Amino acid sequence: MIPKGSYIVIQNVEPQVDFGRYAVKRELGDSIHVKAEIFREGHGMIRAELLWRKEGSKAWNRIPMTHVNPGLDQWEAAFEPKQIGRHEYRIEAYTDHFASWLHDTKRKYEAADTLESEAIEGLHLMQDAAKRAPKEEAKQIANWIREIEGLTYAREQAAVMFSDPIVKAVCAWPLRKGVETGASDPHPLMIDQLKARFASWYEVFPRSTGSDPKRSATWKDVENFLPYVADLGFDVLYFPPIHPIGKSFKKGRNNSLTATADDPGCPYAIGNEHGGHFDVCEQLGTMEEFEQVVKKAAEMKIDIAIDFAINCSYDHPYLKEHPDWFFRRPDGTIKYAENPPKKYEDIYPLNFDCKDRDALWNEMRRYFLFWAEKGVRIFRVDNPHTKPIIFWEWVIREVQKKYPDVIFLAEAFTRPRVMEMLGKVGFTQSYTYFTWRSEKKELTEYFSYLTQSPVADYMRGNLFPTTPDIHPAYLHNAPHSAFKIRLALATTLSSVYGMYSGFEFCESEPFPGKEELNFSEKYEFKVRDWEQTGIRDFVRDLNRIRHANPALQEYGNLRFCDCNNDKIIAYTKSACDGRNTLLILVNLDAYQQQVGIVTVPLEVCGLTIGKEFTAHDLLSDKRYRWAGADNYVELTPEHPVHIFRIEA
Amino acid sequence: MIPKGSYIVIQNVEPQVDFGRYAVKRELGDSIHVKAEIFREGHGMIRAELLWRKEGSKAWNRIPMTHVNPGLDQWEAAFEPKQIGRHEYRIEAYTDHFASWLHDTKRKYEAADTLESEAIEGLHLMQDAAKRAPKEEAKQIANWIREIEGLTYAREQAAVMFSDPIVKAVCAWPLRKGVETGASDPHPLMIDQLKARFASWYEVFPRSTGSDPKRSATWKDVENFLPYVADLGFDVLYFPPIHPIGKSFKKGRNNSLTATADDPGCPYAIGNEHGGHFDVCEQLGTMEEFEQVVKKAAEMKIDIAIDFAINCSYDHPYLKEHPDWFFRRPDGTIKYAENPPKKYEDIYPLNFDCKDRDALWNEMRRYFLFWAEKGVRIFRVDNPHTKPIIFWEWVIREVQKKYPDVIFLAEAFTRPRVMEMLGKVGFTQSYTYFTWRSEKKELTEYFSYLTQSPVADYMRGNLFPTTPDIHPAYLHNAPHSAFKIRLALATTLSSVYGMYSGFEFCESEPFPGKEELNFSEKYEFKVRDWEQTGIRDFVRDLNRIRHANPALQEYGNLRFCDCNNDKIIAYTKSACDGRNTLLILVNLDAYQQQVGIVTVPLEVCGLTIGKEFTAHDLLSDKRYRWAGADNYVELTPEHPVHIFRIEA
Repeated sequence: MIPKGSYIVIQNVEPQVDFGRYAVKRELGDSIHVKAEIFREGHGMIRAELLWRKEGSKAWNRIPMTHVNPGLDQWEAAFEPKQIGRHEYRIEAYTDHFASWLHDTKRKYEAADTLESEAIEGLHLMQDAAKRAPKEEAKQIANWIREIEGLTYAREQAAVMFSDPIVKAVCAWPLRKGVETGASDPHPLMIDQLKARFASWYEVFPRSTGSDPKRSATWKDVENFLPYVADLGFDVLYFPPIHPIGKSFKKGRNNSLTATADDPGCPYAIGNEHGGHFDVCEQLGTMEEFEQVVKKAAEMKIDIAIDFAINCSYDHPYLKEHPDWFFRRPDGTIKYAENPPKKYEDIYPLNFDCKDRDALWNEMRRYFLFWAEKGVRIFRVDNPHTKPIIFWEWVIREVQKKYPDVIFLAEAFTRPRVMEMLGKVGFTQSYTYFTWRSEKKELTEYFSYLTQSPVADYMRGNLFPTTPDIHPAYLHNAPHSAFKIRLALATTLSSVYGMYSGFEFCESEPFPGKEELNFSEKYEFKVRDWEQTGIRDFVRDLNRIRHANPALQEYGNLRFCDCNNDKIIAYTKSACDGRNTLLILVNLDAYQQQVGIVTVPLEVCGLTIGKEFTAHDLLSDKRYRWAGADNYVELTPEHPVHIFRIEA
Repeated sequence: MIPKGSYIVIQNVEPQVDFGRYAVKRELGDSIHVKAEIFREGHGMIRAELLWRKEGSKAWNRIPMTHVNPGLDQWEAAFEPKQIGRHEYRIEAYTDHFASWLHDTKRKYEAADTLESEAIEGLHLMQDAAKRAPKEEAKQIANWIREIEGLTYAREQAAVMFSDPIVKAVCAWPLRKGVETGASDPHPLMIDQLKARFASWYEVFPRSTGSDPKRSATWKDVENFLPYVADLGFDVLYFPPIHPIGKSFKKGRNNSLTATADDPGCPYAIGNEHGGHFDVCEQLGTMEEFEQVVKKAAEMKIDIAIDFAINCSYDHPYLKEHPDWFFRRPDGTIKYAENPPKKYEDIYPLNFDCKDRDALWNEMRRYFLFWAEKGVRIFRVDNPHTKPIIFWEWVIREVQKKYPDVIFLAEAFTRPRVMEMLGKVGFTQSYTYFTWRSEKKELTEYFSYLTQSPVADYMRGNLFPTTPDIHPAYLHNAPHSAFKIRLALATTLSSVYGMYSGFEFCESEPFPGKEELNFSEKYEFKVRDWEQTGIRDFVRDLNRIRHANPALQEYGNLRFCDCNNDKIIAYTKSACDGRNTLLILVNLDAYQQQVGIVTVPLEVCGLTIGKEFTAHDLLSDKRYRWAGADNYVELTPEHPVHIFRIEA
């Protein structure tokens, strides 16, 4: 069989994830710059168009592409989606016969040819275009054809056909089918809400927002806590699971197997006689009160994020209603979670490949839709890497079809390829290894990978210096400086980060021998004195600086620069419009002063060699006049961070 | 719809060209190392197999893959195809339930669990395996099951199931379907004959092998010329078009528009009253004599390569038989080639998109099959980049279906993406920009791209220092040293190269103002004194060294090394078995002695720091005792090249 495919090659369309298998992620307001290599054999002229649309729309928007580098066959165009949600783009290219005719005929005209054949060919091309053009345009082209046919000499005729209005009108209606026309596959694109990229999360256990260490706080206490969160500059308030907590096999303080009646249990053991994933914990209050929290938070521009942990306590209604959704032993009993030889008798995992699979998967979808309906648009998903990857691809698309602004944060601390895949199949953000990266070399390597490799097209790292599960060695019994250092890194290395409450008070005592806090609030009520000083002012300053500087609101604009001291890490963040450039220096040593010479990348910073500039520290408000790239810096444990705005 | 796809991800299969859209190229005898990232959610054990087969075979060969890097989910395996031709490979992976059971149960066993449930589950898994196993194996597993069931305690039962023979037998029959089994797409692979990678071409105009400047030489003269070619060490003899030559609009000496009756015309203007593409030029002799040349050459292990130029002279039979295959003017006359304002009235291009397209494409296929039938297995294709790319993809596959050992060399000097695409769609080799690259920096960049980038998987650069069309500025009126330098580069930078006759005599006079030889033999009979000295001995030495050193027979093993003089280029070639390592140094300055310090990459050369080694120059047969990486070298215009074999 002789092939009928296109003669035009369209390849290396960018951006792309796995050749268009997965969606590229961008945010509302972004301009999507699309590049491709487009060519065909020989010397005929081609033209290319970028087509894009919102998924589900019938009509494509068309934008002409620019042949930016003919030697490398590179074409480019950009578009700006106006809505949140899934989009697609593709490229069409076609042979521009009239332009080719024009190119050759003009040269022959200059060489004084008679152009007998060429004029006839030109008229044929005009007639072809007229056939494809709509009525009015066709009439206009037909008029021109009549005029041209009235001329005596072929050279005169050709010269008229060279005129701009005719060229424009004829080239507007090229042949868009057959072997001389090509099209790329469509490439998916997810346009997320801006908070997918730029947000500051505060994590708090709702039950820890009260004042009685013997009792759970309530949604009312949470409501009263909102101004504290807003004052510090956070715009996402994230709650670990808010559902009823299992009582059987309840864990006591410090994860002990024996709990007292007063111990509240771990919120990750979901479900009791009051309900399961579709209910709020009876100790916190009612669903209406929760909805009131969501509403009040929204008034302060704070989004509520909740935690989706797909597992059940022994008391979860599912164990009775859907015993077939769980893993069963040969004797029919339901299996608790294990990591042999460890047993987790308070946790019962669901079997995603059970016989009643469709019902289970639909129920999981219903969870997101139910809470989205209540105003929750951000879900932190617990351990997604232990559920089938195609489940996530399916459920995220299903949820975003109805609520395109929903953000999914993957809490997966696992192998890099698995974490990347969760991003590919739809997770909006991911936890990262940041928590364990504290040396300059490893930070540089890891953040080059996260923000400057192709991974940045589909995975956004949300940086948490600590979590209720992870209290890293760097912060064990550490001074305030260590907390400042970690928070400064989190707030400037990525545009999205999260802080777990207590961090502002530098809670640092580990459970002996473990990377966890002692007396973790996962297992007990916690009451804090929110008036303590700690590093609250520093937290507020960082959030203020993030809000005032567009460079810190972008994700892929991180560039490391040289500093001759391994304890000082230096990097720039430069806004895409070039109007805001920051140079950040962090002393990674929480205990000693460090000095060094930082090499300012003048070009990146839009500076001219030999011209003085100001490095304006947005933390201390001090200004330094610098000339040249190499500059001396000095960072103490008290002031371990410079966030310089580069000013002329 | 809830998806039913696989839970297993298989990604980044390597080698690959455009995600498996095009074939990877290797040669007979190569081991194909396949890598992939394979994983699924959670902690279940998986296994993976590499499947491969010759295209058209039903059965797949299966090889277990090795989990070489669990942290990065990398798996590997290798296979060695035994035949020339198109192959395919794919990966299958499945969940190994018995291995997962084993992993968990062993840990519980060590923790002194009773294993009541686990033993029953293990027996179930054995029963499942027995159902899938062939009769004998099933019987064996059933016997074991009976034995195990006879034991009193679950722990005893489990312990028996841990035994190697049972594990091996049960794991051999895993469930290979359903969501817990995954497969990659098949990836195409072309196994070429070895000359695709390692060959030394000699290009000669058959009519120039005689002794009468007034007449064409004949096939008999060519036959007599073969020992000369063999003596120099060449193993491919390539002829520009051998077909009848057009007489109308015949070109004269130096491409002049006015030819005398004695001028033979240009062989690229194909066709006259004696025939066209399926005939040999009447002045050279008969088809039988040509076939005799092919046969005699084969006896000397020389392959004949011919030149496929898809265009016709005004006298080609096609113009009368198939006027519809050509581009036509509005008045019905046939168009000659043009590059406005230039006109080529002796050349009539074929219209690959004419109405009679199928007949034309089939006729082009017939060309290759016809000459392959006559013993020609190598085709140099003139200007393939001016014909549709999908034509090449089709015709090359069609020809290689019948003659899998056919080699296609693309004579495309055009933009890099177009040259690459010709390689992707099937051309075995490509001409390169080598002819115009003479500075160290540009040679280093270009050959890093050609031999060390992904391009090397599908495009093999065949290096010609000159061609009948290109006499580069570097060689204009240049001394012998310049010719030595260019030939040494060609013979060592790639494993496949070609030399156009006359080069060995350093023919260097350009046509004034052009990158062509004066009095090009494209337009006249040429008689050479084949007894001249020139650089014949140097040519013979290079071919001898290439044949004796496996490192020069590989393509992707080029590595540049440092030399502190920009006029000296240094690189290593190391054979894949590590037993043959060469260090090559070329003085790029044809006019002056150059000295410098070369840094020998000790590790690449398999050398130990601090241990002496010998650099044995295979050209001069001199031996240098060196210790350490940095060594002084001195290259004169008389001896501008070192080819050191690194010896212990």
